[in-house]
Order: sequence, then structure tokens, then C-alpha cells
Amino acid sequence: MSIITLLTDFGPGKYVAALKGVILSIDPQAKIVDIEHRVSPQGVLEGAFVLASAVKYFPFAIHVAVVDPGVGTRRRSLVMECRKGTLVGPDNGLLLPAARVLGLRRAFSIDRREYCLPEVSDTFHGRDVFAPVAAHLGLGISPSSVGSRVKNPVDLDFGVYEVSKEEVRARILFRDHFGNLVTNLPEQALPSWISFGKIVELEIEENYKLPFLTTYASRDSGEPLLTISSDGFLEIAVNRGDASEILNAEPGDDFTLKRA
Amino acid sequence: MSIITLLTDFGPGKYVAALKGVILSIDPQAKIVDIEHRVSPQGVLEGAFVLASAVKYFPFAIHVAVVDPGVGTRRRSLVMECRKGTLVGPDNGLLLPAARVLGLRRAFSIDRREYCLPEVSDTFHGRDVFAPVAAHLGLGISPSSVGSRVKNPVDLDFGVYEVSKEEVRARILFRDHFGNLVTNLPEQALPSWISFGKIVELEIEENYKLPFLTTYASRDSGEPLLTISSDGFLEIAVNRGDASEILNAEPGDDFTLKRA
Amino acid sequence: MSIITLLTDFGPGKYVAALKGVILSIDPQAKIVDIEHRVSPQGVLEGAFVLASAVKYFPFAIHVAVVDPGVGTRRRSLVMECRKGTLVGPDNGLLLPAARVLGLRRAFSIDRREYCLPEVSDTFHGRDVFAPVAAHLGLGISPSSVGSRVKNPVDLDFGVYEVSKEEVRARILFRDHFGNLVTNLPEQALPSWISFGKIVELEIEENYKLPFLTTYASRDSGEPLLTISSDGFLEIAVNRGDASEILNAEPGDDFTLKRA
Repeated sequence: MSIITLLTDFGPGKYVAALKGVILSIDPQAKIVDIEHRVSPQGVLEGAFVLASAVKYFPFAIHVAVVDPGVGTRRRSLVMECRKGTLVGPDNGLLLPAARVLGLRRAFSIDRREYCLPEVSDTFHGRDVFAPVAAHLGLGISPSSVGSRVKNPVDLDFGVYEVSKEEVRARILFRDHFGNLVTNLPEQALPSWISFGKIVELEIEENYKLPFLTTYASRDSGEPLLTISSDGFLEIAVNRGDASEILNAEPGDDFTLKRA
Repeated sequence: MSIITLLTDFGPGKYVAALKGVILSIDPQAKIVDIEHRVSPQGVLEGAFVLASAVKYFPFAIHVAVVDPGVGTRRRSLVMECRKGTLVGPDNGLLLPAARVLGLRRAFSIDRREYCLPEVSDTFHGRDVFAPVAAHLGLGISPSSVGSRVKNPVDLDFGVYEVSKEEVRARILFRDHFGNLVTNLPEQALPSWISFGKIVELEIEENYKLPFLTTYASRDSGEPLLTISSDGFLEIAVNRGDASEILNAEPGDDFTLKRA
Repeated sequence: MSIITLLTDFGPGKYVAALKGVILSIDPQAKIVDIEHRVSPQGVLEGAFVLASAVKYFPFAIHVAVVDPGVGTRRRSLVMECRKGTLVGPDNGLLLPAARVLGLRRAFSIDRREYCLPEVSDTFHGRDVFAPVAAHLGLGISPSSVGSRVKNPVDLDFGVYEVSKEEVRARILFRDHFGNLVTNLPEQALPSWISFGKIVELEIEENYKLPFLTTYASRDSGEPLLTISSDGFLEIAVNRGDASEILNAEPGDDFTLKRA
């Protein structure tokens, strides 16, 4: 029995159901798991971040991801064979961070129509290409059987950040359901002057002095703090509050941290 | 192992969970797939459209649909036996378009209480009637065992449209997550003056001149276009934008297309 | 094959997906069912109500619930062994009403790290503690193997209500997708002067005279009524309308009913 996960920007509903129907028509035993269907429309970077942070918790699985503003154009369709799973989706940067997490081996372009639906539309490759290819991969076809090798998949990564002795410049990548803001700065890249218990200055829309803490609950209700997200990135949060609303910040915003 | 799909206007949450619990109590092996739970409250026509466009992607399945403003009144409860699946839900027009897609054979009224929960409430037939009947159908009871034959199920279809040499009048049925507007005009009904590459005039709240195109990406970002939805209906879209917001239009609105 | 249900305040998405990935990594056969992931952030009472009303429809299952503002503090983590299922989550009142519905036998504190992930973070016990413990419970470990017995789990219940010959004072607990308002007053506690067909006076933000009816559809469209929710609690509703919006009331609001 294969596990197939789905990440899209479709919103939950009939488009997602079409993917599931197509998969189950090919492999009625497949176990389908939703990762996220509310990626901001055409939010490739956000989708890449969510996918990369979700896949590591799964056993070996086929991960289908569809955030695909270029559907119908000449962008390639990919299968990425990794040590701990297989990724299927458009070649627009969406898959590569997750492939790195899973241990990328080889990528292939879906050139052959053999494992696609008989009719491939110009607007819905999730249904016509990615879902059926994923189902066939779950049934055991080799990634290399979908088409030719790709050596240079599109790479967006999560954007740049800068760290110096006095300052950090980075970007907000993701807003969770509580309003916590996850940034692109990995824990390992933090300078020594940002350590637990220290106060730092955050410049974003306005300026704030915030402590860097291990838990939300170490701060008073409604007060902002810095912490490490459950994915290992610097996170801007408010204890029992919505940091995005209170600090007036959202994914895509740049910010600066300074020694206080 | 049977596949049981669910479509409701409950919103995701405990009412949907109750359906799943009831189904799994009767058939712990059932594979349950959500189609949509965000149909506009009591939006029978919208639910009928979503159901009809989703069921065709599934292998043989039991499809439960509950958009049921008449619950507790004398409206009948139906099982529709089709060539490619079975439908279960209220007799208010919700099921019939999907039954046509699946190849309707016979419809039955759920008169017998044998396959319902021991107590049938006046407010929640999804849980008390449709879910348990679906689970029993998945375990192999015959559709005819639920009650007597129904020859005249309620038929709403998707509303009328008019096509002439100069003009098309039709209606918006569905707004997807991106804001694309799917209409009730099937591709086959398009007049010859609406063909790919042509410009037509759209009268809705204001007037627009739009090209009819095969892909969103053939239009500049933020610009409106006509295309064919992945379900085969005329669709009003904006490339990388929200057509519903930009054109100020939504499901239920009528519109006119004219030769430009 | 074990059934594992999930209720959280995470919102659907990657945090929920992490729970599912962890569970499937331990037990790839587990059947995972979502109950609700949209509990108001940190809404322990609301989560407790939703959980208690959902679990009764399920066959024997492991129910994981995570609404956990105290994560990372000294609050205990619990496994509650019940006659009709097992509950896993924080010791903050979230689980106990559901445990009563399922027939509580014994509660245990998750003291041993044996069934948790190798690293337990301070911010995400759902992933690191509750999900892996649930998967192991599904595979057959005994609830008593997770740690020591707990005799006094935190008990919030659903808040108090008062019933007299002239007046009822109670509280709104839950707003469903339609805007119906479910209260904490169980059907059995209703005084004799509130019976079907009677008119009563509701004092909330403003005053209303409402009939107590068995079905929404017995009232004109847009008109408010009292009824019994599908869970057996007094419910304030509007036929084909949103009671929460029309009466300007929401979960947490107190109200009074008087003989009209």
C-alpha cells in the first residue's frame, strides 16, 4: 500500500477531490494524505517551504505538489527520486527544497504520456499529469520510466539572509494559523548575540525590543517574542496572540534584527 | 473495501466527523474521501454542480451528498443506483446532475428504517440516514432494499442558458478558490463566433472586451479572459488574479456575451 | 488496523500533516480521521465540547486532541483509557468531557519518553508526544505503559447554568458553520415551561420572543427559534439564516431565557 501526499493552492474542494479520484481509479488501495491546500494562490515559495517542512515526518511516500502558475506553458513536469520519498510536480522551484530534505538522487521530466490521463488539458496538470503519474509510481513504476533525466531543475530556495556581528537581515516566509511568523533564517545561522534569554531589537514596520525565548508561555499574554519554530527557523510570535496582526507583518516582508 | 465520498454544506468539523464515525462504526474498512464541505449553506444548485463535476474522476464509489434545507420536512431521501456509482442524499435536485454523469439506472426512496440509525432526528439526516445507508451499501446491500422505487426525482439541472447568432445569456454557477467563475454554459453549446483567439464582449456589472483563450498564461497578469473550465464549461478568469473580485461577480449572477 | 482521530486548533495544514506523518511512520496501516482543526486558537472549552460531541459516533478509536496553550510548561500529558476508546492530549480540561462520554476507566501521565519522538520540543507536543504515543497505542501498547496513574485530571466541564421556575441562565459554547449557536444547557435540564410549541423570551444583547421548535423549517426564513441541537443541547438558530450574525451573539456569551 502506497502513501501519497497532496499539497496544492487549490483550496480544499472539488479540484483536490479530482486528484483523489484519479489516484484511486488507478490504485484503489492508495492511502492519500492532505498536507496543505491553502497555499496562497500561485505562492510557489510558500508552497516550497510548507512542503519541505512537512515531508520529513513521513515514511517513504509519493509527494504530489501543485502550485503551478505556469501550467500550459513550456515549464517542465518533474519526478524527483529521493532517498526517503518521491516528489511529483511542476519544475518551478516548488519541489527542490523538499528534495534536499529527502535526499535528492535524480530528477526526470515527464515527457512520456503513458502514465498521464488520455487527454492532458492546458489548465489542470495536477489532475491530468501529476496525480496519475503519482499513482503509477505508488504501484511501482520506476521514476526513470516517465521521461528523460533533468540535471538543472529550477531552484528558488527560500531567499537570502545576511548575518553580521551587529545585524541580521532576513525575510518572513510563512504565517501559521495562530499568526506566528516563520522566517527564512535557520537556527544554525543565528549569531552568538541572539541566544536564549537575550533581548534584541526588531525593525519591521515599527521597532520592537523582544526577548529570544524557548517557549511562548515564558512571555506575558499579548507580548511579542522571538523563538525557534518547530521546523528549526527563527520565528516571531506573540504569546496567546496573533503576531501577524499585532506587528502588522506578513509573508514576504523583510526585517532587521539588531543588538539591543 | 468500499470508497465513500462526502459532499456537504456543513463546513469541515464535527458534523462531518459524525458522518465518518457512523460510517466507520458500520464498516471500519471503508475508505472515506472528502469532496467538499464548504458548499454555501443550503446552496443546492452549487452543491449539485460540484458533485456532478467531481464524481466522474472516481472509480465505483458510494457518493453521499448533504445540502438539505428541507431536512425534517416531507422531502424524500434517495438512493440513486447508477452504472458507475451510487448516490445517497435528499431528493431536492442535489443528486440528479451527478446521477446523469454516472449513468442513472434507478432511484429509490429510503422508506425503511432498517439501515438508518435507531433514532432518526428531524435535523440531521446526514448522520442518521445517509451515512449509515451509504455504509450498508458499501457492505453490499442492494439499492432496492432501502425502499420503494422513485420515478420522478426533483430536477433542478443547472438553470437555463440562451445562445443565438449575436448573443449568449447564461449564469455563473461556481467560484473557485482562485476567484475563477465557472458558468452553466457547456463547451458544446458555444456558438461559432466564440472560438479560441476571438474577442467577445461581456456584459455583467460593467462591460468588458475579453479574448477567448486556451490558457490563463496567454493573457497579461491581472487581465480578464474567457476559457473552458477543467469541467468543460465556459469560465470567466483573470490571469494570476481574482475574477470574482475584479469583475465584481459571483455565483448566481447572470451575464450576456456579444460579438465584439 | 487502528482508527486514530485528530482534533486541534492548528488550522488544517503542515502542523496537522506533521502529526499524520509521525503516526504513519510508526503505523503505516493506521486509519486517520480529522475531527476538527479550526478550534479557536487556544479555545480549550470549545475544543472539549467538539471532542465530546464527536467521539460518541466512532467505533473504538484513539482520539488525539491538541489545544494546548500551556505547552512547554509543567502541565501533564495524558492518556485516558475509556471503555469505548482512548484519549491522548494535554491535561488542561480538553479531554475529560469526552472521557465521560466514552466511559473513563483510568488516566495516566505520559512520564516515560519511550513512545515519544527522540527529541521532544518545548513548542510542539502534538508532534513529539501525542501523535507517536497514539500510534503506539494503536499498535497495542497498554495505556498504563506510558507512565504513572493520574487521579485528578483537570476538569473544566462546560461551565455552569441555572434553571428556575421563571428563568434560565446559560452560556453559548459553540457556533457552527451555519451560525447556529449551541449552548451548555442539556435537553434534560430544560424546565417544563420550555417545551415544544411554547414561546420564550431570550435576553442576550437585545430581547427576542422565540418559539421552541423541533425543526428549523417550522419557522419562516430569517426568523429566530430555539431547538435542540443534534448533540442534545439547547440551540439558538435562525431558519435559513445565521443566528450568530442576526442576534449578534457568539461562543462565550451568557444569555437568559424567561417565560414569555
